[in-house]
Amino acid sequence: MMQIRLTAWLWMACLLSGLLAPAGATTQPAQPPSPPAVVEQWGLFEISLPGPADGNPFTEVQLSGRFTNGTQTVDVDGFYDGEGVYKLRFMPPRQGRWTWVTHSNRWPLTNKQGEFTASPPKAGNHGPVGVRFQHHFGYADGTPYKSIGTTMYSWAHRGEALETQTLKALAASPFNKVRMLVFPQTAGVDKHPPTLWPFAGTPPKNWDYTRFNPAFFRHLEQRVGQLRDLGIEADLILHHPYDDKREWGLDNMPREVDDRYARYLVARLAAYRNVWWSLANEFDFIRTKTDADWQHLGRLIQQIDPYGHLRSIHNGKRMYNQAEDWITHVSMQHGMAAAEANRAVLFREAWRKPVVFDELKYEGRHDRRWAQLTGRQMVHAFWSVTIAGSYGGHSEFIPDPLDGTIWLAQGKQLRGESPPRLAFLKTILDAAPLEGIDPIDAFEDLFIAGQPGRHYLVYFGDRAPTEWLPKLYLTGLRDGQRFKAEIIDTWAMTITPVKASLQFKPQGRYNFVAAQPIKLPGQPGIALRLTALDTPAGAAARPALDD
Amino acid sequence: MMQIRLTAWLWMACLLSGLLAPAGATTQPAQPPSPPAVVEQWGLFEISLPGPADGNPFTEVQLSGRFTNGTQTVDVDGFYDGEGVYKLRFMPPRQGRWTWVTHSNRWPLTNKQGEFTASPPKAGNHGPVGVRFQHHFGYADGTPYKSIGTTMYSWAHRGEALETQTLKALAASPFNKVRMLVFPQTAGVDKHPPTLWPFAGTPPKNWDYTRFNPAFFRHLEQRVGQLRDLGIEADLILHHPYDDKREWGLDNMPREVDDRYARYLVARLAAYRNVWWSLANEFDFIRTKTDADWQHLGRLIQQIDPYGHLRSIHNGKRMYNQAEDWITHVSMQHGMAAAEANRAVLFREAWRKPVVFDELKYEGRHDRRWAQLTGRQMVHAFWSVTIAGSYGGHSEFIPDPLDGTIWLAQGKQLRGESPPRLAFLKTILDAAPLEGIDPIDAFEDLFIAGQPGRHYLVYFGDRAPTEWLPKLYLTGLRDGQRFKAEIIDTWAMTITPVKASLQFKPQGRYNFVAAQPIKLPGQPGIALRLTALDTPAGAAARPALDD
Repeated sequence: MMQIRLTAWLWMACLLSGLLAPAGATTQPAQPPSPPAVVEQWGLFEISLPGPADGNPFTEVQLSGRFTNGTQTVDVDGFYDGEGVYKLRFMPPRQGRWTWVTHSNRWPLTNKQGEFTASPPKAGNHGPVGVRFQHHFGYADGTPYKSIGTTMYSWAHRGEALETQTLKALAASPFNKVRMLVFPQTAGVDKHPPTLWPFAGTPPKNWDYTRFNPAFFRHLEQRVGQLRDLGIEADLILHHPYDDKREWGLDNMPREVDDRYARYLVARLAAYRNVWWSLANEFDFIRTKTDADWQHLGRLIQQIDPYGHLRSIHNGKRMYNQAEDWITHVSMQHGMAAAEANRAVLFREAWRKPVVFDELKYEGRHDRRWAQLTGRQMVHAFWSVTIAGSYGGHSEFIPDPLDGTIWLAQGKQLRGESPPRLAFLKTILDAAPLEGIDPIDAFEDLFIAGQPGRHYLVYFGDRAPTEWLPKLYLTGLRDGQRFKAEIIDTWAMTITPVKASLQFKPQGRYNFVAAQPIKLPGQPGIALRLTALDTPAGAAARPALDD
Repeated sequence: MMQIRLTAWLWMACLLSGLLAPAGATTQPAQPPSPPAVVEQWGLFEISLPGPADGNPFTEVQLSGRFTNGTQTVDVDGFYDGEGVYKLRFMPPRQGRWTWVTHSNRWPLTNKQGEFTASPPKAGNHGPVGVRFQHHFGYADGTPYKSIGTTMYSWAHRGEALETQTLKALAASPFNKVRMLVFPQTAGVDKHPPTLWPFAGTPPKNWDYTRFNPAFFRHLEQRVGQLRDLGIEADLILHHPYDDKREWGLDNMPREVDDRYARYLVARLAAYRNVWWSLANEFDFIRTKTDADWQHLGRLIQQIDPYGHLRSIHNGKRMYNQAEDWITHVSMQHGMAAAEANRAVLFREAWRKPVVFDELKYEGRHDRRWAQLTGRQMVHAFWSVTIAGSYGGHSEFIPDPLDGTIWLAQGKQLRGESPPRLAFLKTILDAAPLEGIDPIDAFEDLFIAGQPGRHYLVYFGDRAPTEWLPKLYLTGLRDGQRFKAEIIDTWAMTITPVKASLQFKPQGRYNFVAAQPIKLPGQPGIALRLTALDTPAGAAARPALDD
């Protein structure tokens, strides 16, 4: 019923505003398949429409769709997918019946209508990830998202065989986020030219920036979809500086091309629930763009992405102003800061957003100092940023003995010592409270984090004590409260319960202490987990102090 | 000539716009003294004008002055100083002849005119301090300003005898900045009610917020002027949270009163060249104001201060968003971050502004953990923030055995061990290049700072090595370049030249090294100063690397 009324109204509107297409302006390819009648919530609903293939469909044809469930309306841009086919993609944010109608400046594409049902999400589909509790992340369905990311810049530019192998390795890994370049690279860690290019034209740089290469983006989407099906977020890097010889010119496009590229990417990929937008890798090494250019691009994406996927910009040596409003979370390169919770926590304090140390140096054997971490150092850095209430990012620079490939560039296979320990860390994070791990009292030496009065992680790093008298900052604690203690070996991946429970009593102005010390192994990389066993009746939880 | 023409023009303008004062609206007190004919550049030029004392002169009378030297025009607000006297103050930013004319909504105050000459500044007058080289400070005449600050919150509220004694102690101290409260405090570290109050009314809180107490501000100005004459910057704190029992209500005024207070303060004090504006101490402990209130106030002061004096806001536990455009430099409380250059440097990187650790904990013997630093720890923190390319702030919590006064609250007398060592540090800073001390390569462990290729400070902190093979990051260095080395004992305050000069050669991708190690005393708190002796001909200075 509603569909019929809408059709009539739109017909009238088009008539009145003179939008009827001029005769002969379009060719009419074969009718593409009908859209599905049912798509899961946060799944990908796609409409294909035949339309004009003449002229320049990328610049001359506007297409958008309006989706509504009666209370929520979402406008999405369509895109040209080549050979006379236009597409609209939509990720239903709620379950139930959705109707849609198209708008276009071309007659064959406008006023198309339909409806579908968004069904309950299937197992493993938790929706897109957003910011939760100011410094953390969560899926749309309320499930916390504990980020353990990795970087494989060019993995999706390396051909079917290698890409399939990489997907297999990822499936067996702990990683739930992959940082990856949209554009291929010619310098840095991968110098092989790809088989697919983002623009029409001929390599190395005779590009027609007004025409995208749909096959390039279809391939990218295939990989993003495969990551999604593995439960992995795709942190898509739009721009990068790895074209030292200026061979391809993709890092030096005019602003109007950058904008069109961003719009095309959003139109094609925003309906993939696992997409994050990273404006650039090492933005400050792209000498052809100013901070104002990045701000413009960030705000553009903020404005045109109907779902508000996470947005960040990754630095080289110079920090970006991460306080800018379009930035949802900090994507940080900083090896030195991530090596110690006392340092890492300062960015979180400064910017009051989630901080992901996406590049805290890499595990590897490179001659460059950014890829010389031992496995132990990598695991230590992940634990340090965890205690700092932040998140780490992994990658490896350990060349394959046969073909020289490295995980950081091509993916293929994990060879480092850290990944199993990061999988172990992930089980610790998953067992933590919903609200995440927050620093507890960063006033002097920060080595305890968790949720006050409920859950604590104590990380001793390189200090390797043989015992520790449990002493906690008072916030959230109650006089006489009892805790279970477990000794965690972050390298051996063991959790050993401490037999006796701990009972805490106030000590001085700031702390609560247990009666007896806990014996510890005297090795580096040891942590403790303290979990509240009770909340003593009649004892009030202590409030935080100003000083 | 010009003066006469201007008079005629203004007379006409007033006539036309109907601004002639209504009959009987004013009383006419005795004529105040004429303004001086000569004032030094960056000195204080003051005009006193008789005007209406009836009604509420603070809210009903507008007065401003326009000062011009023909090429530069400065508009300043006047203020009511009580007993029928209005004043206009002006700090001439350039030498030469300045003319002025007043504007007012009251006849006796408008269209007054005159001129004076700004003479060359006297010895010790370097003009106001501003930001230089992004992370540092300098006086208007080009002299670098190396900040060694101290805090004495209530020193100007303690009566003539104590205040005079404090000024004497300051004159003998190394400090060139004092953080001080404009309003008195009833809690925190000083609970004595003052004799002067900022508003008309009766203590503890029957204030008429529409009427200031000029005597209170005249007293404040006297102290600010005395600091100026000692070469000390007055970092004036407009708001503070130290009124626990809500006795006085000065931390809970309506926005319109806060704004009027800011305007009055700027009108009275902006012409003092040594004024800095600190919006608040521990802003986050003032629960009655939001971040939006602070931003409003910061932008208001930015707009109304004709000289653009430095503006900051000091935090308690929660960081303010120091990226906001009105903030000229970061005024930071952070004890843990200042304890290590590796930590301190991160705020500088994050905010790209000068960072002053105005509160890095205090030297003292307090039961609170923010005032328990030993003298050695205080000196270490100053050196750490120096290597981080930032600045430190001192204070003491060491009660006077007779009357219990402490420097942090009342001033009076320095008792700690750090001040002589901070004086020594100041001589090191003063001998550094004009551009200041910047971190050299904060990629791994930051302990070297200076200016690349010219001047290095190497600070070993607690590591106490017995020797060190000089190794510097390559930027700015030339193959074969020679340096003079001096061993600095930051505690004993000695500088010992190393006999042989050092010659540097490239080593690997990142560094230059000397041929021989330098023997060191094996004690904590040792630094090295390396000063370039030559710039070898034919050897190019090495550029910075991306990685």
